[in-house]
Amino acid sequence: MKFKILKKSKNSRARRGVIETDHGVIETPAFVPVGTQATVKGITVDQLKKDVGAQTVLCNTYHLYLRPGDETVKKMGGLHKFMNWDGPIWTDSGGFQVFSLGAGLVHNVGKLPSKSHAQAIEEKYKDQGESEHANKSFTKITENGVEFRSHLDGSKHFFTPEVSMKIQENLGADLIFAFDECTSPFHDYEYTKRSMQRTHRWAERSLKAFQGKKQALYGIVQGGKYRDLREASAKFIAGLDFDGIGIGGVFGDGRGDTKKDMRNVMDWILPHLPENKPRHLLGIGSPEDIPGLVKQGIDTFDCVIPTRLGRTGEALLAKGTLNLKAGKYLQDKNPIDKKCRCSTCQNYSRAYLTHLFKAHEMLGPILTSIHNLYFMEELMKGIRKSI
Amino acid sequence: MKFKILKKSKNSRARRGVIETDHGVIETPAFVPVGTQATVKGITVDQLKKDVGAQTVLCNTYHLYLRPGDETVKKMGGLHKFMNWDGPIWTDSGGFQVFSLGAGLVHNVGKLPSKSHAQAIEEKYKDQGESEHANKSFTKITENGVEFRSHLDGSKHFFTPEVSMKIQENLGADLIFAFDECTSPFHDYEYTKRSMQRTHRWAERSLKAFQGKKQALYGIVQGGKYRDLREASAKFIAGLDFDGIGIGGVFGDGRGDTKKDMRNVMDWILPHLPENKPRHLLGIGSPEDIPGLVKQGIDTFDCVIPTRLGRTGEALLAKGTLNLKAGKYLQDKNPIDKKCRCSTCQNYSRAYLTHLFKAHEMLGPILTSIHNLYFMEELMKGIRKSI
Repeated sequence: MKFKILKKSKNSRARRGVIETDHGVIETPAFVPVGTQATVKGITVDQLKKDVGAQTVLCNTYHLYLRPGDETVKKMGGLHKFMNWDGPIWTDSGGFQVFSLGAGLVHNVGKLPSKSHAQAIEEKYKDQGESEHANKSFTKITENGVEFRSHLDGSKHFFTPEVSMKIQENLGADLIFAFDECTSPFHDYEYTKRSMQRTHRWAERSLKAFQGKKQALYGIVQGGKYRDLREASAKFIAGLDFDGIGIGGVFGDGRGDTKKDMRNVMDWILPHLPENKPRHLLGIGSPEDIPGLVKQGIDTFDCVIPTRLGRTGEALLAKGTLNLKAGKYLQDKNPIDKKCRCSTCQNYSRAYLTHLFKAHEMLGPILTSIHNLYFMEELMKGIRKSI
Repeated sequence: MKFKILKKSKNSRARRGVIETDHGVIETPAFVPVGTQATVKGITVDQLKKDVGAQTVLCNTYHLYLRPGDETVKKMGGLHKFMNWDGPIWTDSGGFQVFSLGAGLVHNVGKLPSKSHAQAIEEKYKDQGESEHANKSFTKITENGVEFRSHLDGSKHFFTPEVSMKIQENLGADLIFAFDECTSPFHDYEYTKRSMQRTHRWAERSLKAFQGKKQALYGIVQGGKYRDLREASAKFIAGLDFDGIGIGGVFGDGRGDTKKDMRNVMDWILPHLPENKPRHLLGIGSPEDIPGLVKQGIDTFDCVIPTRLGRTGEALLAKGTLNLKAGKYLQDKNPIDKKCRCSTCQNYSRAYLTHLFKAHEMLGPILTSIHNLYFMEELMKGIRKSI
């Protein structure tokens, strides 16, 4: 993998560049659609190329390890062949999914906790120590790795940095991530620090175990909501021989302005990252967050928002979303967005899309996901142009 | 609409022809994919054209009347514009769906009853008269029409031949059907005869009410499993000024050889139909039935089998089906069918498709439905060539 910076903004840390892989290039800043189980939900590869204009996709190591199994994917010729996507593919490390079964589950947090979340968590745990939380999870974290139970059948599994590398090599994505522990914003300073230090040791072990000759390996910065930890983690990961830098974590704790908390974390990290390595922000973000995050210096993003919203009938607009399930567009001949050039907006009315959602037809999620993914591609094109 | 016969078989009643409509031609014999709610389930119009090669689709009047409403479809510019399909469209009359809420529900019969069906029905009703059956249904049939309750919300509605014509004109399909009562194979001779005579009066009323200037109207032959009724119905419908002839009903009663019962019904009807009008067999058939039915003189077929099987992981093969849910193909690199040229077989392995079904991913039903619909198109191409 090669990363070239083509242009730097004069007014911000934004860069325009290109990531070159054996399966083609990714113009950055880029949005990476998520294909958790080796498929972007409801969208064929043909649609992803022609209707969406996607450059690349990200699959989830945890899910593919459980089903169909990384060994099976390897036997079938690797992820590219298996899912028929000949462009660049990313796999995450499994750390976030394992977190989701552990503290993520106990603390009930997604990527950006809300205020109501924060209050509920505070209420729930006000009389309990941190150790208490950990015991309620599906995971057990030790120096060696993470023992967890499958969300599918409860079976026990053990991920270590070495296991994650092996799985990701079997899957055969172009861009892969070191194994990390994602911490919750409801973890205290002491736990977050211990976890971060372990993640750093896991980063070194990932690098050592990594043998992918045609793969590029990203390290992951953790450190929670604590400035000194984020700075320390940025410096540490920057100092290792990774091809790129991932930024992980759940941002803010919902008690303040979560979006601002996320921006703060970026401001703490980005100055300490090397200019010549691409930076990926894991699991973020929404169309309203991305332009600001690019200015802070992020190159690539992956997020399920466009397809998740698409499945629930929420179409992305320049401002906010259009709720196609609400029924108010049942006789609206207009497309989702008159200015949009996507195949959904060129061919279908809000009335038809509303009908599809009301009638529980698969085509509703499909057409709306295509619009939403195209919207993200156009957003990123505009951002690249503006740099 | 114009129907031209291009060639007749020397060994059978099979004909090769073409149905010309304002929205393009249908080469016959043809299979018509079903898009019940103005969408072939999970398949975009683009896929239907390019991946499947479909010539035409059939939508269901009953479903579209209830949701989004025929008036809404009319306001949105008609079915072609609404669903973005610019080829020929058919709508059925609503008769079969109304039957499904009535005797179809009470007798628990689909298009081709099985032996176990027949036994269960016989057991259930051995001490009850026919009138008893009718009272358990969601419908009330009178000379004027059918009162029924919506399967969606239980609301009351009333279909007459005049209402069905009006709805179908609002929907704006190219090829539409007269309103009829479909009878159950568990209806006795007397009821079937009375019903058929009423269907004949409804056929005359449909013709009288029909005002579609750019639409073609098909009459429907009924008469159940009784030879003299089928012959009488064929002659009566043939004698009216319809553009085409539909053949309706549920074939056989499952107590004998249902497929043979269906072939018998065709043999009773077809000799009495005019050569110069196209013949559509409603709601039939499976790949193994179609070649024989073409030889008996049928020109067009509509059936949900390819998409229904596609959704449940059953891929059509030259002989039988491949069950992609069974798990035995989880490491099979082969496509569904090595000889198949469809986009699914060209690009995806059985292993990947099995994974998609195991992982409950929408793409499994989508890709398998594309294969199954393509399979039907190829089957029909082969049949047309052979005539």
